[in-house]
Amino acid sequence: MNTAEASARVVVIGGGFGGLQAVRALRRVDADITLIDRHNYHLFQPLTYQVATGALAPGDIAIPLRHVFRRQERVRVLMGEVTACDLEQREVTLKEAPSSADIPIPYDYLIVAGGSDYSYFGHDEWRSVALEVKSLDSALEVRGRILHAFEAAELHPDERDSWLTFVVVGAGPTGVEMAGQIAELAHGTLRKEFRQIDPRTARVLLVEMGDRVLASFASPLPERAARSLRRIGVTTMLDHRVTEVSTDRVVVEASDGTSSEIATRNVVWAAGVRASPLAQLLADAARAQTDRAGRIAVEADLRLPGHPDVLALGDMVRVSDPDAHEARVYPGLAPVAMQQGRYAAGVIAAAVGGRPPAAPWHYRDKGTLATIGRARAVADVRGLRFSGLPAWLTWLVVHIFYLIGFENRFIVLSRWAYSYFTGGRGNRLITAAAKGSRERG
Amino acid sequence: MNTAEASARVVVIGGGFGGLQAVRALRRVDADITLIDRHNYHLFQPLTYQVATGALAPGDIAIPLRHVFRRQERVRVLMGEVTACDLEQREVTLKEAPSSADIPIPYDYLIVAGGSDYSYFGHDEWRSVALEVKSLDSALEVRGRILHAFEAAELHPDERDSWLTFVVVGAGPTGVEMAGQIAELAHGTLRKEFRQIDPRTARVLLVEMGDRVLASFASPLPERAARSLRRIGVTTMLDHRVTEVSTDRVVVEASDGTSSEIATRNVVWAAGVRASPLAQLLADAARAQTDRAGRIAVEADLRLPGHPDVLALGDMVRVSDPDAHEARVYPGLAPVAMQQGRYAAGVIAAAVGGRPPAAPWHYRDKGTLATIGRARAVADVRGLRFSGLPAWLTWLVVHIFYLIGFENRFIVLSRWAYSYFTGGRGNRLITAAAKGSRERG
Repeated sequence: MNTAEASARVVVIGGGFGGLQAVRALRRVDADITLIDRHNYHLFQPLTYQVATGALAPGDIAIPLRHVFRRQERVRVLMGEVTACDLEQREVTLKEAPSSADIPIPYDYLIVAGGSDYSYFGHDEWRSVALEVKSLDSALEVRGRILHAFEAAELHPDERDSWLTFVVVGAGPTGVEMAGQIAELAHGTLRKEFRQIDPRTARVLLVEMGDRVLASFASPLPERAARSLRRIGVTTMLDHRVTEVSTDRVVVEASDGTSSEIATRNVVWAAGVRASPLAQLLADAARAQTDRAGRIAVEADLRLPGHPDVLALGDMVRVSDPDAHEARVYPGLAPVAMQQGRYAAGVIAAAVGGRPPAAPWHYRDKGTLATIGRARAVADVRGLRFSGLPAWLTWLVVHIFYLIGFENRFIVLSRWAYSYFTGGRGNRLITAAAKGSRERG
Repeated sequence: MNTAEASARVVVIGGGFGGLQAVRALRRVDADITLIDRHNYHLFQPLTYQVATGALAPGDIAIPLRHVFRRQERVRVLMGEVTACDLEQREVTLKEAPSSADIPIPYDYLIVAGGSDYSYFGHDEWRSVALEVKSLDSALEVRGRILHAFEAAELHPDERDSWLTFVVVGAGPTGVEMAGQIAELAHGTLRKEFRQIDPRTARVLLVEMGDRVLASFASPLPERAARSLRRIGVTTMLDHRVTEVSTDRVVVEASDGTSSEIATRNVVWAAGVRASPLAQLLADAARAQTDRAGRIAVEADLRLPGHPDVLALGDMVRVSDPDAHEARVYPGLAPVAMQQGRYAAGVIAAAVGGRPPAAPWHYRDKGTLATIGRARAVADVRGLRFSGLPAWLTWLVVHIFYLIGFENRFIVLSRWAYSYFTGGRGNRLITAAAKGSRERG
């Protein structure tokens, strides 16, 4: 290490898949790295829906960022929110808590990997009513609220139908997985546990604007997924648009314009994507524009136009494609973010080492997977499309393989084995995150 | 079963150790049982402190009450708060949520097992500042707040000392366990994970009004526990009384009257006992008095004087002792509540079956145990007093044995094995239950 010259200071915002891979890949670069996240943990986001339905515990799919990087000594992890970004001064501002002082964090290179939220298509007032399974906290809230719905149905005969109707909006992978899990919870796990109600009478509706479930998968996988959903007791409403969400009902409109009202106190939102507010923060700092989904455009090497020391990646960006007219939006999948994270680290490594710039980023699609329920899944691996038990086993192996931390893998595997054979779910607790659920009604 | 006559209706309030055992023991009695609890789970309370320090996950030590009684078909579980009690009408009132309608629950026999809270010795304003490890929700809050303290110390050099000072009030089993766990967390688990601070510099102070730790144990166990605490880095302050608790300091007074101030933002309260408000509810309904700790007096057979169809047990009662002048207070231990729960079920079984009343309740003391840290514990089993690894192994076997549910036992055991060999803790997440922690400061 050259001690005469100061090492490069790299700041990475976001400890999701992209940020985590970037920091890891920077370990051989002569740089002091600061990783900033609002949470103290990395979340294995693809399994969040399993926390939301009690199959896994929060600690099974989340690992403290400090723990991940405890041996990478030039990495410091800071927990807080980035509230400002000065691209001229090369400095971001961190707030540890709303009331605490601003902490300036200078950088030589900046990687922004803020991810995305769900979009309510202009109806942000629905956000306070609907449930989401994006973060760990929201998943715990969903868990409490779903379980509480059965408790409330047991106690209030007059409200029974609306408590026992679950509406999932959006039939992408998360929506399909949530609908499948709620159906299995109601029709399997809870079957014998109530005396006044029969949880098997619970209705699970999956509402989708488009004409297929899992539309990002190639035929015949959407059809097979639809069949699996039907078998486990999910009613799919295709070509239906949500026009109203309130505390005790949802109104949907079919493509022919007819409206229908669904009495429900449980709406899970899994539709639309809105980039992290960090994209807007960055756009404002660079005097750039975001697109309708709030994404910022980056060059083919993930650099911010005009700011070669700033890179952005993941769900919050569109990537310039030299072969196409428009910048491309890649699917919001973990592999995309992970590959971009490693690529971004490479761009910085080259710049720090004084080497020539890397070739444009290129996505290597290794396949996509979605589960529907126990032993039911669909898989598309390099054009090989399969479903059922083989797809589910593939899904299982891939997810265990990518889970970080030995203890997590071991415990998740044993929980899955347990519930596979017994149908049980070990984490059916209504904790404080779900409190106030009834007050809204 | 005699269908001409209606079966007895038994209502049990509280799904802790006492209530759980009562309901279980009633399974052979011709009775319809209603179990009411504020939570949807039974909590294995003696391990709550391990959730508070990230060693175990909430789901490891809590199990849904419905799941426990899924095969006991004449048991219905209702989740809600008992807000009123009419001993003449033989009816309790249940509220599912603050805003929901009153639900009347009639009974022929009533068992009240509401447990206890901590007492702040007349300083209820300290309750909002101090942390507790009584419920699962409070344990999750403690976990988030303790972990957050290290994050805040990493970011705010000027507040470092107060963030890294942990004061535990009360050197009973819970206080000793908490102090030991915080010390192990700071000095072991987190050791290599921070860059600005050294977690090993964290101070853990255990403040105790009396002249010994674990005063309920016989000599030489308190002395051995004190030595173990010292070795793992806990500073014990005996003969010290807390006179002030605020967001950034605690003031303690020694027995000679000298006061000293401790700069700290982390106070864990584990002193004093106050009976559940259900004791007062019952006392008001029966026009009886509660004692200074809010306990209600019951007969030697746990019946409420003048109300033979109402029984109360656990931390919230004093039990009349035919051999003594005054009603006795038994220690707030799981075995006491469990034995009383089974006994109460027997009293009802006799009454329902028209059999003569049971002999007065008698506590069979099987021994007491407390852990201090990894491989450190004290045990007093029928007068045989031992400490160190043998005591810790005894503690481990007993706690695994009494944990309910196969999956729980298996996962807890594997977590303990993991952290025994690695010093790691798998559940170090700061979740929403801990939010707002900084706002108070």
